[in-house]
Amino acid sequence: MKPLDALGELLDQQVLVRLKNGLEIRGILKAFDIHINLVLDNAEFEDGDIERKFKKLFLRGDMILFVS
Amino acid sequence: MKPLDALGELLDQQVLVRLKNGLEIRGILKAFDIHINLVLDNAEFEDGDIERKFKKLFLRGDMILFVS
Amino acid sequence: MKPLDALGELLDQQVLVRLKNGLEIRGILKAFDIHINLVLDNAEFEDGDIERKFKKLFLRGDMILFVS
Amino acid sequence: MKPLDALGELLDQQVLVRLKNGLEIRGILKAFDIHINLVLDNAEFEDGDIERKFKKLFLRGDMILFVS
Amino acid sequence: MKPLDALGELLDQQVLVRLKNGLEIRGILKAFDIHINLVLDNAEFEDGDIERKFKKLFLRGDMILFVS
Amino acid sequence: MKPLDALGELLDQQVLVRLKNGLEIRGILKAFDIHINLVLDNAEFEDGDIERKFKKLFLRGDMILFVS
Amino acid sequence: MKPLDALGELLDQQVLVRLKNGLEIRGILKAFDIHINLVLDNAEFEDGDIERKFKKLFLRGDMILFVS
Repeated sequence: MKPLDALGELLDQQVLVRLKNGLEIRGILKAFDIHINLVLDNAEFEDGDIERKFKKLFLRGDMILFVS
Repeated sequence: MKPLDALGELLDQQVLVRLKNGLEIRGILKAFDIHINLVLDNAEFEDGDIERKFKKLFLRGDMILFVS
Repeated sequence: MKPLDALGELLDQQVLVRLKNGLEIRGILKAFDIHINLVLDNAEFEDGDIERKFKKLFLRGDMILFVS
Repeated sequence: MKPLDALGELLDQQVLVRLKNGLEIRGILKAFDIHINLVLDNAEFEDGDIERKFKKLFLRGDMILFVS
Repeated sequence: MKPLDALGELLDQQVLVRLKNGLEIRGILKAFDIHINLVLDNAEFEDGDIERKFKKLFLRGDMILFVS
Repeated sequence: MKPLDALGELLDQQVLVRLKNGLEIRGILKAFDIHINLVLDNAEFEDGDIERKFKKLFLRGDMILFVS
Repeated sequence: MKPLDALGELLDQQVLVRLKNGLEIRGILKAFDIHINLVLDNAEFEDGDIERKFKKLFLRGDMILFVS
């Protein structure tokens, strides 16, 4: 198994994405590529005290620390 | 679906671009490439207390965190 | 022997992954690639005072300092 | 349209280049390449309290945030 | 002679690896590649006040400053 | 014209190189490549309060902000 | 002349290598490659108040600012 296969198993599931700056974004994984660019549906994260929600989010891969 | 397809669906629509430093730029997505370089029309962002507006903005992809 | 061979010998074993920011994650190494992207099962790390646990973690390689 | 086409439309025109550190340079765009390396004529920027002027400036692309 | 040849001469010898953040790791060099990824046996470093020891360490090359 | 052509026109002339950290180096441009690695003759810069002078300086391109 | 040719002329000579963090290392240049990885013999640098000396040093190129 290769690491990207593990991302493939997470498609259409709720995931937690932690960024390098500690920010954590939750959403449903809809797509990924070899750069770990992700598309999340119904994405949510806490921006300071504000809860941000996005129906669809394109997330650039190079700020991602992990996906679970 | 690949992540860049999600950007394709946003063409000619109002988008929110969040940069890695937290800055958020709004505008109409007119173009993108595999580096996530973007062109935004009628781009706006808050630069400290100043509202900045640009008719057309070429935005380098490597500072982008997400697009929605 | 090449360095990636050493990672191959760690497959299905408990490993310690130290990130560039000092964070240390423990888990069972299930997969890796040439970018040092890793998949860890039963991953655990301390996030400030909180013990975080994940059944499966995809970890991006470019934040990794070492694996042991 | 691709993002670099938008740069092409700005050739020989007055542009504003904002760098990743917030510095803004104004000048006439004379050349660009795929790395977003730029050549500006009659470039000007504020360096602290000092107004700096350069007849011709080669600007490395990887510090650029946007061009407008 | 090319720089990687100098690493080749250090194989199976005790080396000192200094990282970009100033951390210094000592161990026996068992493998390296063109990215300067290293494998060290019997690796040791000081983590604050704690002496850390690892029988085998895979060290990612991009945090390395020098090897001696 | 491409940006590197502008560097070509500066060969054998006195140039000012500004680095990403604000340091400015003056010298005669003797060579450059596509990475913007430069060779400067009679290079000078202020290192805190000290005026540093070098007959020949090989300057790595990835720290360069602009050349004029 | 290309910039790497200037490094070639420095082979077997005493050089000064300044790193991006300001550290300066002196030694005899024995090898280099296109990544500006260097090998220095009899390398010396000041590590805070301590004078460090190494008979042979492999120095990773991406931390180098200049060589003279």
